[in-house]
Amino acid sequence: MAKKAVPPGPRDERGVLQARILGAARDAFADTGYAGTTIRSVARAADVDPALVYHYFGSKDRLLDAATTPPPRWLENVANTWATPLPDLGAALLRLMLGAWGDDEIGPVLRSVLQTAAHEQSTREKLRRVVEGQLMGVAQLGADEHDRKVRSGLVSSQIMGLAMMRYIWRIEPVATMTEDELVAAVAPNLQRYIEGDLSK
Amino acid sequence: MAKKAVPPGPRDERGVLQARILGAARDAFADTGYAGTTIRSVARAADVDPALVYHYFGSKDRLLDAATTPPPRWLENVANTWATPLPDLGAALLRLMLGAWGDDEIGPVLRSVLQTAAHEQSTREKLRRVVEGQLMGVAQLGADEHDRKVRSGLVSSQIMGLAMMRYIWRIEPVATMTEDELVAAVAPNLQRYIEGDLSK
Repeated sequence: MAKKAVPPGPRDERGVLQARILGAARDAFADTGYAGTTIRSVARAADVDPALVYHYFGSKDRLLDAATTPPPRWLENVANTWATPLPDLGAALLRLMLGAWGDDEIGPVLRSVLQTAAHEQSTREKLRRVVEGQLMGVAQLGADEHDRKVRSGLVSSQIMGLAMMRYIWRIEPVATMTEDELVAAVAPNLQRYIEGDLSK
Repeated sequence: MAKKAVPPGPRDERGVLQARILGAARDAFADTGYAGTTIRSVARAADVDPALVYHYFGSKDRLLDAATTPPPRWLENVANTWATPLPDLGAALLRLMLGAWGDDEIGPVLRSVLQTAAHEQSTREKLRRVVEGQLMGVAQLGADEHDRKVRSGLVSSQIMGLAMMRYIWRIEPVATMTEDELVAAVAPNLQRYIEGDLSK
């Protein structure tokens, strides 16, 4: 991201200020929850006037929504990855997750969603809708809808747990294993959820 | 737990009040974090005088510590379970986790730890110490300390992710699968982390 290195022209300023406000809002919602966050505290952390936060986002609800909505290209990446040929799907989903957490734009949103969802009902609903919605679309996991949702739910449980350990709680050695080590260790387990016999 | 059904005598009252205060504290820390929680708000939720909270727990720090410390019998259960014969260890760890979340005394503590750790640094440190400490003791996972910690870290990632999906975020169908269905589906994956080849 070159945003900080290049001083914004008049056209860019709106985007830069919005990004700064959203960054501050993500930290605030993750740290103190919805109840503990005020437009004023977010404005102070972003070093802007509270009126500007209202101007761009209208309300605390809409600010929370904007702060925890992944960019469209992330949702496209997820949809594209689910179309990976079945034998490679486990590794592809894992590499997608590892890449996303390392991404300057997507990583902070994912962190904010997981941290805020721990204690904020509306974000938990959003996480649930995104996960359940994405899972239902994965036709190539099979014709039986319940079976498909079990498989993709278990895939999510492993990917989410790994993300919590590695990026939120930073528990060693999972936090510092290389991407290739993690793919070798974890992708076969995802692959079993994707196409293995889960009844024994 | 029969505590509510039996009116406490003088000897029991201290324990009953402490339990009520700790229950209120767990909800408060999980919902609003350390910064958003006050002794006063916990006392109000527990319907006791704030002076009693100070009397029993001394400070907000010590209240947080007490609220997020699992009962000793839970730590004993974990230690005993890690001694399960290797071929049955995956299923045993999974059944331990499922049982603990359903336990009236342990479940609320686990929920509080996971929710508070999402946004509270000191609880995250505690979670990290507990997980890393327990993992290091698992001698039967092998002689190589790094390999042992990788294996038990990956076991934890799956168990924690499943707990988040099932008990915190309540995402279907993982939230309502039976215990036996989950053991059939997930234990073989834990077993691969425990004794499989993780390098390919």
